[in-house]
Formats: sequence, C-alpha cells, structure tokens
Amino acid sequence: MKKFALMGAAGYIAPRHMRAIKENNCDLVAAVDPFDSVGVIDSYFPDASYFTEVERFERHIDKLRKTNGKIDYFSICTPNYLHDSHVRLALRNDCDAICEKPLVIKPKNLKYLKNLEKETDQRVYSILQLRHHPAVLHLRERYKDSAEKINIQLKYITSRGKWYQYSWKGDQAKSGGLALNIGVHFFDMLTWIFGEPINNFVEVNTADTVSGLLELEQATVEWFLSIDKNNLPKHAVETQQTAYRSIIIGNEELEFSGGFADLHTKAYEEVLRGNGFGIEDVLPSLSIVHEILNKREKEL
Amino acid sequence: MKKFALMGAAGYIAPRHMRAIKENNCDLVAAVDPFDSVGVIDSYFPDASYFTEVERFERHIDKLRKTNGKIDYFSICTPNYLHDSHVRLALRNDCDAICEKPLVIKPKNLKYLKNLEKETDQRVYSILQLRHHPAVLHLRERYKDSAEKINIQLKYITSRGKWYQYSWKGDQAKSGGLALNIGVHFFDMLTWIFGEPINNFVEVNTADTVSGLLELEQATVEWFLSIDKNNLPKHAVETQQTAYRSIIIGNEELEFSGGFADLHTKAYEEVLRGNGFGIEDVLPSLSIVHEILNKREKEL
Amino acid sequence: MKKFALMGAAGYIAPRHMRAIKENNCDLVAAVDPFDSVGVIDSYFPDASYFTEVERFERHIDKLRKTNGKIDYFSICTPNYLHDSHVRLALRNDCDAICEKPLVIKPKNLKYLKNLEKETDQRVYSILQLRHHPAVLHLRERYKDSAEKINIQLKYITSRGKWYQYSWKGDQAKSGGLALNIGVHFFDMLTWIFGEPINNFVEVNTADTVSGLLELEQATVEWFLSIDKNNLPKHAVETQQTAYRSIIIGNEELEFSGGFADLHTKAYEEVLRGNGFGIEDVLPSLSIVHEILNKREKEL
Amino acid sequence: MKKFALMGAAGYIAPRHMRAIKENNCDLVAAVDPFDSVGVIDSYFPDASYFTEVERFERHIDKLRKTNGKIDYFSICTPNYLHDSHVRLALRNDCDAICEKPLVIKPKNLKYLKNLEKETDQRVYSILQLRHHPAVLHLRERYKDSAEKINIQLKYITSRGKWYQYSWKGDQAKSGGLALNIGVHFFDMLTWIFGEPINNFVEVNTADTVSGLLELEQATVEWFLSIDKNNLPKHAVETQQTAYRSIIIGNEELEFSGGFADLHTKAYEEVLRGNGFGIEDVLPSLSIVHEILNKREKEL
Repeated sequence: MKKFALMGAAGYIAPRHMRAIKENNCDLVAAVDPFDSVGVIDSYFPDASYFTEVERFERHIDKLRKTNGKIDYFSICTPNYLHDSHVRLALRNDCDAICEKPLVIKPKNLKYLKNLEKETDQRVYSILQLRHHPAVLHLRERYKDSAEKINIQLKYITSRGKWYQYSWKGDQAKSGGLALNIGVHFFDMLTWIFGEPINNFVEVNTADTVSGLLELEQATVEWFLSIDKNNLPKHAVETQQTAYRSIIIGNEELEFSGGFADLHTKAYEEVLRGNGFGIEDVLPSLSIVHEILNKREKEL
Repeated sequence: MKKFALMGAAGYIAPRHMRAIKENNCDLVAAVDPFDSVGVIDSYFPDASYFTEVERFERHIDKLRKTNGKIDYFSICTPNYLHDSHVRLALRNDCDAICEKPLVIKPKNLKYLKNLEKETDQRVYSILQLRHHPAVLHLRERYKDSAEKINIQLKYITSRGKWYQYSWKGDQAKSGGLALNIGVHFFDMLTWIFGEPINNFVEVNTADTVSGLLELEQATVEWFLSIDKNNLPKHAVETQQTAYRSIIIGNEELEFSGGFADLHTKAYEEVLRGNGFGIEDVLPSLSIVHEILNKREKEL
Repeated sequence: MKKFALMGAAGYIAPRHMRAIKENNCDLVAAVDPFDSVGVIDSYFPDASYFTEVERFERHIDKLRKTNGKIDYFSICTPNYLHDSHVRLALRNDCDAICEKPLVIKPKNLKYLKNLEKETDQRVYSILQLRHHPAVLHLRERYKDSAEKINIQLKYITSRGKWYQYSWKGDQAKSGGLALNIGVHFFDMLTWIFGEPINNFVEVNTADTVSGLLELEQATVEWFLSIDKNNLPKHAVETQQTAYRSIIIGNEELEFSGGFADLHTKAYEEVLRGNGFGIEDVLPSLSIVHEILNKREKEL
Repeated sequence: MKKFALMGAAGYIAPRHMRAIKENNCDLVAAVDPFDSVGVIDSYFPDASYFTEVERFERHIDKLRKTNGKIDYFSICTPNYLHDSHVRLALRNDCDAICEKPLVIKPKNLKYLKNLEKETDQRVYSILQLRHHPAVLHLRERYKDSAEKINIQLKYITSRGKWYQYSWKGDQAKSGGLALNIGVHFFDMLTWIFGEPINNFVEVNTADTVSGLLELEQATVEWFLSIDKNNLPKHAVETQQTAYRSIIIGNEELEFSGGFADLHTKAYEEVLRGNGFGIEDVLPSLSIVHEILNKREKEL
C-alpha cells in the first residue's frame, strides 16, 4: 500500500487528491496546511497526522524516511507559487511528487526540478487531468494523423466574485494570473492534441479577461477566457448559470459537460502504474502562458 | 433588504450563514478571513467585498456606516476565542451581531458584552440552532408543565481524526475544549427544556472524552461526549458510521436523525423578526461547561 | 499617571514610543504585535501585558475600560496601512490615539477619523516629530513674517538594502510608497514653515527615487528623495556613509545633523499637555504626497 | 569568500550572526524571516536578498546551488523548535549549517541530523558560545587534570516581563522551556569543563524558575535559574539591575561580567577553520535538560 503525504490540505482542490488516494487504495499518512480548517480529512483518512507548519511536517516525514512507514509520494496542492519548492521538499525526502498544475509559474524553473529529479532519482508528476477525460482522449485519437489545419473556437467564462482578486489567485506573482491559473488546462489539452505552438497573438489581457489567437501545428485556436460575469452569453445569464464553456472544433461543438468527477483518481492511477505525466509534458502549455504574460508586459 | 458582513468566511460553518442570509432575502456586503480559500462565496454573494485582514474589513465597514449602504448585522463564525471581540467590533460599528456558539469561552465575559449592548444600543444574538429543531420544540412543549423529574441518557460520539487536536479546536484556550465546542449544544437544549442546573458531577474529562451527571430542575441527565472512535458502539462501527447520537428521555429514544439542514436559516429568520436569542440565553449552558472545566482543573 | 497601550511593539520605531512614555512618567499597560520578538519591552515596562492577536488585546482593553485601570492613550506604530483602523480601535475604546506618521495613506480617509473623533469625544494625535526639532522651530520663527519667496534645495538619500522592496515598506498599498513613507516628514516640515502648497511638479517617480518641484506660499522647493545608494554623493561614499541629508534654504545649509534622539518624547510631552498635533495638521503633507502618487499613475 | 544564507533575520540574536559573518570577511547572500522588520540588514549586508517565505528563499538557494554563487553555510537563528528542520534544509541544499542553541529540543532527534550529515556529506555546527569565553577557557585548562570533586553554586536570574510567557519562548513545545532556553548555556559550559553528568536532581520546576543539584564527574553543582524578578538579590534590586549572575567554584567567584560581545564571531571563526562544535558536542547538555523536563512530567 503506497503511502502519501499531502501539502495544502485545507484548499479547494485537496478533497480530490484525498479521494484519488483513497480510490487507488493508498494511504494518507501526513498532511499540512497553515489553515487548520481541515475537517474534510475525516471523510478519508482520520488517522493522518496533521501539521500547521511545514517544518514540523518535514520532521515527521524525515523520521519516517528510514522506516517501514516511509512516504512514497507527496501530493502537492498548495498555492501555485509554492509548488516547485514543495516538489523539491518531496524529492529531497526520497519521495516522488504529484503536483497540481501549474508545476511552476516560470518555465525556466523547470530545469531546476529536472536536475533534482536526476540527483535524487525521484520523479515529478504533474496533474494534467483533462488528458484523462474521455472526450479529450477521443479527440486525440481522431486527430492523430490529421493532415489539415483545423479551426477551433474556445470560450470559457467562469465568473468569480470580488474575493478572487483579493486572494492569492488574483496576485500575478502567486498564481501566474488568469491565463495560467485557469487557462493552462486548455492550453495543455490543445497542444497535447494538436501539437506544438507556432504563433501566439494576444488580444486582450486584463485582470479578468484574456484572449488571443494561438496557432498550433494542426490547429488555429481563437480563445477567450474570462472570470467576468458580464462576458457570459445571454442564455447562460437567463438560466442563471455562472459558467459557460464552449469548444468548437471545425464545425462541431465538443460535448464537454460531464466526466470531470474522477479525473484526479485516473491521474493518480496512471502515476501509480508508472505512466504519469512529467516535467517535459508541462512545458508546451507553460511556455504559451509565459509568452502571453511577456507580451502583456511589453505592451504596457 | 438587510445588509450583512461576515467574519470567518473560510471556515467550516460559514456556508450555513451565507445560506441563511440568502434564504432570508438579505445581502452579504463584506466578508473577512485571513485564509483566502473562500470560493464558496461565489455560490451565494459574488459581489461581496472580501478582505484577508480585519483592519481593512473594518475600514470598509466604517466607511459604509454613515451611508445608505450601512451594514445592519455582522455574522460571526470565527474561532471561538475571537467571538466576543468580533461581536464588539460589530456593536461599535453600529451593527447587531449574530454569533456562532459559544458567544464567549468564559461566562464572566458576558457582562462586558451586556454593557456594550447598552452603551451602543445594539443587540447581540447567539445561534442556538437546536432550539429551532422541530423535535426539540416538541419536547419543550411536552415537558413544559411536567412535575416529575425525568431520567435522561445522552450519548454523543462523533469521531474526529488526529488533525482535531492540532487545530484551534484542540486548544483549550481557543475552543474551550470538547465540553464547550461540542457539548454546549446539548447543554443548551437540555436546560432550555428541563430548567436550570442544580448539580453537576464530572466523571471523565480528557482531551477526547467528557462525561458526567447533570441534575436539572426537571431532569437528571447522564451524559457522555466523545470524539474518540473507540467509543463508538459496535453496530455503528459495523455499519461504518463515524458518529453516534442517542438521547433517551424516560424510556423513549428521541428521534433526532434529520431536520438539521436549515436550522441556521430558521435562527436568522427569528433574529430578523426580533425574536433572536440573546446574551442571557447562553448563560445556563456556558455556566455548566465552565463548571466542568473548573472541576477538571481542581482535580489535577 | 496616564496609562498607555501600544500597537506594533515589535517594530523598528516602537522603542521610541516606549521611551517617550517612560520619560513622560506614564505607564505602558498592554502591548500587541503578531511578531513576538518583543524583548525590548523589558527595558521599559516589563509588567505590560502582551498579546500576539489584536482580538485578545482588545478584550483586555475593553475589560479595563470601566475600571480604575482604564487606558488613556493608544500608541500606534503598526505598518502604515493599518494606522487608521487602529486609531478607530482606540477611539471606540474611549482612548485617545497617538499615531505614527502617516495617519492615513489616502487623505480622503481623514474625514472618517474626524467624524469618529466627534462621535466618541476622543482625540487623534499624529507624531510630527520634526516640528519639535530645535532647528525647525528656529526656522519657523525666522520665516514667520517673511514676505519674499525663498528657494530651497532638499536632498535626502538614505540607502536601503534589497529587503526594503520585499517588506511592507516596498508595497505601495501598505506603505504609500517612498514619497509617503520617507518624504512625508519633509513635506510636513516645509509646509509647516513655508505655508500651503500651490504647485507640485513631479520629475522622477520610481520605486527607489522620487523628485520634483514644490511651490509653497513662501518657498520654492526642489526636492529629491532616494533610497538608492547610487545616488549618494561621492564624499558620502568615500567616508562610507549610507545616508546624506542636505537642506539649503536661500544660500544657507540647514544644520541638521543632531537633535533627533528625543523628538518622540517631546511630541508625547506636548500631547500630554494638550498641545498635540491633530487630524487637520497632517492634511497639507498628505495631500502633497497624494498628488505625487496620482501624477505617477496618470503619467504611466 | 564564503557565502552565507540566514534564517531568522528579524529575531533578537540575528545581528550577532550578521556581525560574525562580516567580521570573518564572509558574505551574506540571502535572508529569510516571516516578519519583515529586518532593517538591521542594512548595517551589514544591504545587498542580501530577502524573503518572507521559506519556500521562496529555498527557490533562491536551489538556483544558486549549481553556480559560482553557491551558498556555503546556513546561519540558523529561528525559534528553537524549527532548528533541526532548517538544518536539514541547509544540508539538503549542499550547505553546512551553523545553528543557534539548542540544536534540537529532544535529544533523540539528533540521530536524524547525524544520519543526514552522512548522507549529504555536509556538516552541522552548533553555536556554543560560552566555550569561547576566555574565563571559561581558563577554567577548563585549570580543572583539566583535577582529581577532586569540586562544589559549584550557579545562580542566574535574568528577569523577563509578562511578554515572555506569551511569546514562543514561553511555549514549552516551541522553546523547550526555561531549562533549555536559558539553562542550556550553563549546562553545556559545566559539562564541557567538569565532565559527564552522573546524577541530576530537580528541586523546583515552574514556568519561571528551575533549580536542582547536578552531579558531574568532577563537580557537584547547585544550580538555580529564574526569570522572575522576585528572585533577584536585594543588592541587585537596589542598584536597579534586572539580571544577576553568580558562579562560585570552590570558594572563588567566577569573574564573568564581560567578554560576551564577540563570542559569535569567535564561534564562526572556529567553524570556518574546521574546528566548530558538532552534533556530539551538544548531547550532554541536551540530555541534562531533557531529564529535567521528564522529571517535571513525572512529578505532576
């Protein structure tokens, strides 16, 4: 039974990781979060040790390191800007790391992780959950040998309240901004299916909306991402929906309304089988976002 | 439309307050919590201002104070030991306060709230949600004029994982300990129905289990509270239940398995109607717990 | 013997306040700071109660409020952006407030303090220590009835290391930036001596240097403020000095090398005599800085 | 020129470390402390990078690791309970660690540091500054070959204000309590001079006073440590002294009033020469304190 330690236990996404650990018949041994509203642990692993400070957590992990109770994997779902540091904590404690997206905020930091992977002989895995979605897998199969370049319209509006800009998610240095925090899923999915980026034009780039034109090897993508409810289409507003997601590939709307519930579990399953996505896999999407951010800075 | 500000927005119980505000057709204008995982706000009041620091929250409240946007009520669901200070913040900003249980940790601190209520001409309300439960209301009616003293067995085991003792809930100075944090609901319910405490014997008093014998005007209560799963009865363990609740009054088991979902909404409804429970109402149950804690200290 | 409570006890400037309280034969009863490296208290008031949380501090203050031990004054030396909220805490606890500069970051927030002063019948004092400096008092006397407009060159370079930009002082929203955090002393001194601002031109405005031309009723001031050591004059560098201060009024260099040690004590002395500087006194200098900041934003 | 990183830059003792680095002609490259009142850096190393979060500090250290700018030593002066975790951070970043006393709170944790020293081929040094004091060196020389057992009376009263018990120093789990936080210096000095502990009787053990009888190979020590000013001798009170230190060895009072100023510098000098004190050196004094603490628990 593989043993896990989890960093970021009080956050929004932590329960998905706990569930994935549980559903893959593994054990959560220790968890850490400075915020102690972690009652959700009881639904999964009440016997897990819990710490409010990383240092005390680290002491516990280090003590287990040379025993039968040694941790195998860290699950990392802390705020984005802490990811790579927490990944290194895992590796240096002889553990593999399974990290929420984005693995790093600046792509140039990937090389430090790569080096440490080699030095420690441990592995870094990134959760790229859309790659496990049946509709996405289906698409990838379908366009595998496609010769012509296809047109794609991607529109994703998921309204967020005022709190968003006053949380770490609204702090560019901590989250990487909208394009990274929300967009990276789609950029990863698209490059995975349609190939490497060739051109990358940014049209709008504000705190709540980013859009542009992205040319990939096999597709040209008009994309629009927003957390501003004013961008919701009329019919969404009328039916009191707060999110709108549309991906039109060629002339077909991608059916994408369900199938999200257990993607973390599938991602963990692949990692445990030795098929997880690693450092190289995140590079294309992170590079696209990094370009978007740089363009913004130049334009100002 | 009454306007609310909420303190403790990231905590476990905050969504019940948001829902209660919503279901009573009121508005949440501002919220604060040092921990910024507050996405739940989006489900209720995305336009609410959000702050990670009490000082910035206070500035916002003070600015609204002399305008049409003035806040009417504070909803307070921060860690227990902060309650009375946050209640005073409400009162001093010309707002009424609706506060989670327990209003204070030490009953002697109630008088400071009482004085400030008078000085500011504002009101302090405590959420005593079991008093709105239909089964409890029914009991109260039934035993209203009962002359004989009835025997009650109360057993409440709700297992909590290791995290509990490393969170503020496990810190006696911050939560008031098990008897206060979990027991106060029952002590309040029992005194409300069966009258003032006469005698109070404590049998067990550890970090995870407290029990004793409580004599009220109209009842003698054997009570047992625990967060240790080893105290769960066999049948609960066998059916994988993590909580067990039993109240036997006379020879009848109180049917108490449902009806909890909307008690905060009912509590708010009564407050808005002018019928909320105030400072005096919490005194009996807080006094019982305080005695329990004192007995512990004496015995050591 | 007047009784004080101090907010911001671990900060750089706190010992000046403790000393001022001591040297004016007053008592420090309570202190608060989230950072607990407050051993300096022992040199002045070892019997002072100490709290790491504002809420617990507030409970203590409120308890004393109706007793012989009532606090008379709050000394506030927390980070700038918290000042006005902490001043309100003082006033609402029936105490006067003695606050470090700047009283507020945005001048429009002064009116809320003014209103609360009236409502609570308490007073707000601002530490404007240069006004107590003998050389400044002398200047004021000398130019009191001066008819002609005099030329002034003010140059203040006080080099700060990298840490500055990563502390709250480097965060515009928390400190008000260089012009406020360091410049406000000089703008206050100059307007106090030479009258109201008439024109205000900003030349340079970066994270580490601000400069401009300020026209006052009786003077035209070329000013230059910097925390960048590269702006130090050669002779300062050669003599390994890290700060350079020069004020030339007309053709005379203001002798300004000493006399700073006990200015807080003098400021407190005046407050205790009923002569402290209040809300109105800070308006001219804060308005100048606010204009500087606004110009910056417009120019970008 | 050796390169240093410093953890705990805002604390009381940090300036001694900065000075020691400076006076040994080394460079401070990076510093971290969650509390950002670190202006003292300017007096020593204004070009040092500064971080408020350990994770961002670690990223910086890791980036330098494979460059010419690689850090050689970590200086660790964080709260006691974090020491060993921060030492491991140093070692795992291919740096040696120079750590304030006590290296660990529980002696059993020394073995994890020892193991990691071997794994990483880095060294852990502990600051045991009294061993560099001329009077102590002299004593050691004098009693080196002494055959008879000598009687020692050690009395150290250093009064601390109320804040002490509300800071991490007053939290047994964070500081190790009085015997560790203040006493460890003396237990180290005594065992270094007079040999291993043989017997250890504890007489008083409260939050502010500990005393007992310690039998070493070559001495019998009556010791008394207190932070309660009521224990100060009359003449100290009369001369307004807040500390009293007396060590009587045989019939001679140890002259011990000066010579403390540069002990950190000397300690660093020895480390840089390869003569620093390591993990084994701290064991005797930590074991004595651990016994004292255990006795306390048993007696209660």
